[in-house]
Amino acid sequence: MEQIEQANTEAVGRMLAADPVLIDVVTAGDVIDGLGERVILHAGPPIDWADMCGPMRGAITGIAVFEDWAPTLEAAEEMAAAGAFEFRPNHHASAVGPMTGMTTLSQPVMVVENRKFGNRSYCTINEGLGKVMRFGGNDAEVLDRLRWLRDVLGPAMGVALRETGGIPLKSLVARGLTMGDEMHQRNVGCSGLMLRALAPALAKTSTDTAGLSESLAFIGGNDQFFLNIAMAMGKAIMDPVRDIDGSCVVTAMSRNGTTFGIRVSGTGDRWFTAPVEMPQGLYFPGFTEEDANPDMGDSTIVETIGLGGFAMGAAPAVAGFVGAGTAADAANYTRTMGEITVGENPEWTIPALDYLGVPTGIDIRLVVETGLAPVINTGIAHREPGVGQVGAGVVRAPMACFEQALVAFAESVGVA
Amino acid sequence: MEQIEQANTEAVGRMLAADPVLIDVVTAGDVIDGLGERVILHAGPPIDWADMCGPMRGAITGIAVFEDWAPTLEAAEEMAAAGAFEFRPNHHASAVGPMTGMTTLSQPVMVVENRKFGNRSYCTINEGLGKVMRFGGNDAEVLDRLRWLRDVLGPAMGVALRETGGIPLKSLVARGLTMGDEMHQRNVGCSGLMLRALAPALAKTSTDTAGLSESLAFIGGNDQFFLNIAMAMGKAIMDPVRDIDGSCVVTAMSRNGTTFGIRVSGTGDRWFTAPVEMPQGLYFPGFTEEDANPDMGDSTIVETIGLGGFAMGAAPAVAGFVGAGTAADAANYTRTMGEITVGENPEWTIPALDYLGVPTGIDIRLVVETGLAPVINTGIAHREPGVGQVGAGVVRAPMACFEQALVAFAESVGVA
Repeated sequence: MEQIEQANTEAVGRMLAADPVLIDVVTAGDVIDGLGERVILHAGPPIDWADMCGPMRGAITGIAVFEDWAPTLEAAEEMAAAGAFEFRPNHHASAVGPMTGMTTLSQPVMVVENRKFGNRSYCTINEGLGKVMRFGGNDAEVLDRLRWLRDVLGPAMGVALRETGGIPLKSLVARGLTMGDEMHQRNVGCSGLMLRALAPALAKTSTDTAGLSESLAFIGGNDQFFLNIAMAMGKAIMDPVRDIDGSCVVTAMSRNGTTFGIRVSGTGDRWFTAPVEMPQGLYFPGFTEEDANPDMGDSTIVETIGLGGFAMGAAPAVAGFVGAGTAADAANYTRTMGEITVGENPEWTIPALDYLGVPTGIDIRLVVETGLAPVINTGIAHREPGVGQVGAGVVRAPMACFEQALVAFAESVGVA
Repeated sequence: MEQIEQANTEAVGRMLAADPVLIDVVTAGDVIDGLGERVILHAGPPIDWADMCGPMRGAITGIAVFEDWAPTLEAAEEMAAAGAFEFRPNHHASAVGPMTGMTTLSQPVMVVENRKFGNRSYCTINEGLGKVMRFGGNDAEVLDRLRWLRDVLGPAMGVALRETGGIPLKSLVARGLTMGDEMHQRNVGCSGLMLRALAPALAKTSTDTAGLSESLAFIGGNDQFFLNIAMAMGKAIMDPVRDIDGSCVVTAMSRNGTTFGIRVSGTGDRWFTAPVEMPQGLYFPGFTEEDANPDMGDSTIVETIGLGGFAMGAAPAVAGFVGAGTAADAANYTRTMGEITVGENPEWTIPALDYLGVPTGIDIRLVVETGLAPVINTGIAHREPGVGQVGAGVVRAPMACFEQALVAFAESVGVA
């Protein structure tokens, strides 16, 4: 048992020592091994076409048209059913993606380097709200936006970030927590801070006034711009924690819209999965729970590092947005998550809770003992392909994942 | 009495109906009547050179050199003592200025139009933190920055704002209250929101890449950039409330570093003054209370409209910065100010207080009855000219101002 405590202390120590820096935007195929033609990285644990939910299928067909692998969505669907595409989780490729999480070779990906440990992680650029590919959107508007991200914003951000020498994220997130962000369903503060850091370099390196103005307007018009950066940061922080013998700290939580998977440090890269749950939340006008797809996306990496639902106390405004109740309820979510975590993050603190550090390092033993499953703030996709976001809510990680993981972990330390 | 309630309801109704929009940046001398050679607008109620505090004198001599009215600070001081300059309050010229509040003919001023009532107000561009003229700084670095604001940023912002058609401020401030700002000592959220709104137009209208990059870096590097906009907004909101017979709502609170003055709607433009008090606060390294100048600036216009100290509950992080205590203390400041105000602002609400509206419309009767003086979050200047900011703190408006005003108000309604 003392060995487990030591291993968990090491795990959280590595999380707190991390130094994530946004350094570049590059073409995914240039940096992700094996990301070639007809390879599609998706959110969550491994899944086959036959088991994919509606919005995931919608995104798959859309990205196939975007990559010119199929002439139409219908053709792409037939190809997918016939096994023409190779599907792999983002998490197997140092990457993460929100909701459906499509990552393919020609897309631009942001690069976060963890300068303490030297590892890098990748995430696509956030598309904005509404009808977007991460929520299963796949029409011309969606694909045109992806082309603009590939041809205009991505390259411009890459040049600008190289000009800056990189934007450190740890202190930026610390400021965001004082600005009502929890970095999952609310990123308005950090998105503004990122624009403040990036805009001068974008201007300095721009060779295209119209493109520059469009880029600044796109970033400035997207309250969730920072989400994908927070996710790449989360992946960069957690990857060095993946292989500590005897540690029962969760290193990833992720969902593909059908199954929810977790990974635990001491059991390496094995996924422990269970069916995803349905978020409880609020719906946009014209939509109800009957339209909703269950929980989806790699974005739960932010809860894995103590943000999102774990940092709800920092974001009373998001509690209303996701239907989680009052400011006191928001604070309680954060305090409750403190019961299933190894420690607090002294650098990421919440002024409204008198500078309580966010709960850090989910201990699967504590989850099973207390019966308190990790709380997640999430967007809600329409269950049909091609529609988009219909709401936002709160969902729990399935307890079955933690129970399976605990059995395997016990075996790994010779207890079972 | 019922007539007074009706008049106060009218006053607060005008405050809530206001529609302040940042529309332009122009040269002060072009828009402010009588702002000619050797005329200096300053913060607070009227004051002569002989009575001015150190930082106000420092700023006066600095601005005289900036305007080429004097070759040196020493020469400017002799000219000031000899009566070479005409001193007038900003408040007498539809203007406001933070701390020393220097406004002179060649400086760029931001223009806020209250589109509900058609009036306009003016404020210079915030210089950033540290050694700056508003805190009494007057050396070459300070004057060079003022020249850059005049020659580069001011004109660029003017063109960009005209391109946007104006940036509405009411909704922007509403968002800022969900981001931990109280718009006096903390403007980090609103400053980011303003950059998001302004940057695309700055890029679109720019003819100078280096100047654009400098401008974006200056705005992005200044957490208090929005303060001066909030102040011009406050003036634009309150000016239409200045002349309501029978209303005892405060229309301005302001200080020149020597005296504190208030104006009340029913008594028109008369100032009720008392000696300024000393802020209780926290000092930057190397400075103590002995270095501090008493309370100064027109920035208390933000408390007059329910922000600043009145909205402390929205900004638990600022409570620590100004030495005002815990998150619970911050909430208490806001709740307590509710005891001296006519109502709440339903559009400016605080998520951490379950969407309580900020306390709005200071009633001088309630101030005197309860003994609760308005609370103000303020920066603290060094008492000597030429040094700059040394800390930040909380200060109260002097009760004597309200007592005098109440006597005059009673006379005005035929009670005394």
